[in-house]
Amino acid sequence: MGAQPPSKRAAAPFSVTPLAGMPLFAVGMSVAGEIVAAARRQKITLGAGDIVVIAQKIVSKAEGRVVRLGSVTVSAEASALAERSGKHPALAQLILDESSEILRATRAAIITRHKSGHVTANAGIDASNVEGGAEDSVLLWPTDPDARARAVRAEFSALLGAAPAVLIADSLGRAWRMGTVGTSIGSAGLVVVDDRRGETDLYGRTLQATLVGVADSIAAAAVLAMGEGAEGAPAAVVRGLAQYVEAGEGKGAASGVRQLNEDLFR
Amino acid sequence: MGAQPPSKRAAAPFSVTPLAGMPLFAVGMSVAGEIVAAARRQKITLGAGDIVVIAQKIVSKAEGRVVRLGSVTVSAEASALAERSGKHPALAQLILDESSEILRATRAAIITRHKSGHVTANAGIDASNVEGGAEDSVLLWPTDPDARARAVRAEFSALLGAAPAVLIADSLGRAWRMGTVGTSIGSAGLVVVDDRRGETDLYGRTLQATLVGVADSIAAAAVLAMGEGAEGAPAAVVRGLAQYVEAGEGKGAASGVRQLNEDLFR
Repeated sequence: MGAQPPSKRAAAPFSVTPLAGMPLFAVGMSVAGEIVAAARRQKITLGAGDIVVIAQKIVSKAEGRVVRLGSVTVSAEASALAERSGKHPALAQLILDESSEILRATRAAIITRHKSGHVTANAGIDASNVEGGAEDSVLLWPTDPDARARAVRAEFSALLGAAPAVLIADSLGRAWRMGTVGTSIGSAGLVVVDDRRGETDLYGRTLQATLVGVADSIAAAAVLAMGEGAEGAPAAVVRGLAQYVEAGEGKGAASGVRQLNEDLFR
Repeated sequence: MGAQPPSKRAAAPFSVTPLAGMPLFAVGMSVAGEIVAAARRQKITLGAGDIVVIAQKIVSKAEGRVVRLGSVTVSAEASALAERSGKHPALAQLILDESSEILRATRAAIITRHKSGHVTANAGIDASNVEGGAEDSVLLWPTDPDARARAVRAEFSALLGAAPAVLIADSLGRAWRMGTVGTSIGSAGLVVVDDRRGETDLYGRTLQATLVGVADSIAAAAVLAMGEGAEGAPAAVVRGLAQYVEAGEGKGAASGVRQLNEDLFR
């Protein structure tokens, strides 16, 4: 049996509600404040058992992570990467700056390990939904997504007197499969991976799939509800999964990244 | 602008409700019939806009995909694979039989392409939650998960006079990330990948993340609600995502598998 009583993980319904009508974000705006206001307009009082999923793009904009490609000084290494990949040299420079390691660079894609630990295409840099409309503006991930999640949660706590869990999500591609799914890149107060090793199944046999990707599953659900593009909502409230909310900060989304030398699919 | 009016994909809430109290499945039992009965006990009337997510294990059991390792004749190829991987020789034989290609075989894992097209560890073969309790019983995936999903949907249609979408899900590991997430391995009447290429974002720019992994996102949400182990529910109803339900059969979950030569992360 695991450390948690089984009843805590009993099958139970949950809901995902996108928060609509939020303003366009710019540097210095309060993500937590705008989410609390949007929730109130939808008659939702955020509580300690809720999970607030936030699109990476608004966290990045509030942090001031919009960069104009024209402002970037391109190194020789970035020029070479641009040549290999067919990317804009300034974008190649930003990808290098944001990454701890380049895993693959071809004309199909640049796959890197972001400094936060997550493995993704183009270091998570997004050229859509950046205000200003200029063709040469791109949006970087938050510098430290787990730290941003903790900060947003602390602000919720101050505003609400209660601390819902916070999950920062981005739509990421996956190995072997078509289409992006919401993936957790930062979290606070949330079980990221539920370790059920040692627990038994209906027949008393030890469970095989004993590490459950909780935060990524929640991110997938929320990002689907939030939608993409013009009608997208940049945040959602997940209600009914309080068993995965932690009073403390939790391990953070980076703890859900597999060690490079352990990767089974590499 | 895409083929679908944007309002069809507007951000909207959805719910996931696990169906509890279902019997243990054995060969020949009706998955659709037991799900309709379980839903009725929970006062849920399944309708055409609902998505019914079903754990692979009950579909497999109803199809009679339990195999005793002692009944398997082991080939020389399987013996060699068992040696390389440290797996039981009969399990290695079953993995070979279920796969069109072995992508990797080490002591850490055997990664294969299942005959259905999906890439996963051990060809999806599961040694937990198999009734009989014998240590040497394992459970194979449905022979053709998309065909099974279509059959279950047809049975819903006959029982209900309405055809909810059907999604068969399994908990699968992923490249680079810890923990399993629910993943679609079979579907009927469901958008698998939402192609939004050509649509624009809030600022009139073309969307970057234009292929959305709809079926996998729904599977992740549902499997999280269904839970694992002793308290797990083997099916769930997803309500509020009717925009992804198709009147026709749809392309099937196998259409969400990336072509091997296109894989970005390989």
